[in-house]
Amino acid sequence: MGLSLYTDEYFMKEALKEALAGKEKGEIPVGAVVVSQNRIIARAYNQTEMLNDATAHAEMIALTAAFNNLGAKYLPDCTLYVTLEPCVMCAGACFWAQVEKIVYGASDNKRGFNQFGKQLLHPKTKVVQGILAQESKYLIDSFFQEVRKKNNH
Amino acid sequence: MGLSLYTDEYFMKEALKEALAGKEKGEIPVGAVVVSQNRIIARAYNQTEMLNDATAHAEMIALTAAFNNLGAKYLPDCTLYVTLEPCVMCAGACFWAQVEKIVYGASDNKRGFNQFGKQLLHPKTKVVQGILAQESKYLIDSFFQEVRKKNNH
Repeated sequence: MGLSLYTDEYFMKEALKEALAGKEKGEIPVGAVVVSQNRIIARAYNQTEMLNDATAHAEMIALTAAFNNLGAKYLPDCTLYVTLEPCVMCAGACFWAQVEKIVYGASDNKRGFNQFGKQLLHPKTKVVQGILAQESKYLIDSFFQEVRKKNNH
Repeated sequence: MGLSLYTDEYFMKEALKEALAGKEKGEIPVGAVVVSQNRIIARAYNQTEMLNDATAHAEMIALTAAFNNLGAKYLPDCTLYVTLEPCVMCAGACFWAQVEKIVYGASDNKRGFNQFGKQLLHPKTKVVQGILAQESKYLIDSFFQEVRKKNNH
């Protein structure tokens, strides 16, 4: 297997692919994958527009897909990769899922869980941040720039 | 219409009916309804067991049903009635939904959002607590007593 293939960057690129797929559908470009034993068991992008549901974040959809994939209510051997720092809601969902590790890209200085303290997460959950952060941030920033441009015309 | 019919107690009784329906299916008995202009537009009970999904809380299901009912991504004219204090995840969901008011029954001294501060909620969201709290608490406590009894045999 070697050391090199299944890195955090490898899986974050998969999450970025999801974010791009979401962008093409007019969604705020945030993507997520759930990985168990180096296998992607769930992938999703934000679908708040398409589903008309303010809670349809990439993480929520990916977690529910991961529960379905494993037939389990908890994900203690899983890592959630997500291009943007999880919000309060998604951090709360990760708590219930008992995910082993969260890896995120860009920080969210408004609703990111770190604004409210790491105790929103399960004490056993490890956190890695900043993986491909620039790529993730660029995607989101350019999306909102385009939205603003459209709204000004 | 008069003053008396559509009280917080009236709608909390409907949420309690949901909790009871969940109990009959083996779920942790928590129920929720979403009310818009004195009309119940969504109702749900906790379905974490049935769906094998640790995020399938009554509030999450009721909010998504309410978005669908109104065809709207936000619920600024809606009140969420729930028999138990919302957790971090559900408080985060209420933030995104921008619900006008949350009315809950029993307190949750472990994962209730008040343990982490009211800033988990949207600044515009009003909170009323303790409505039919004893009935809600009794339902949950007796459920877990039965679970423990079963596990001891």
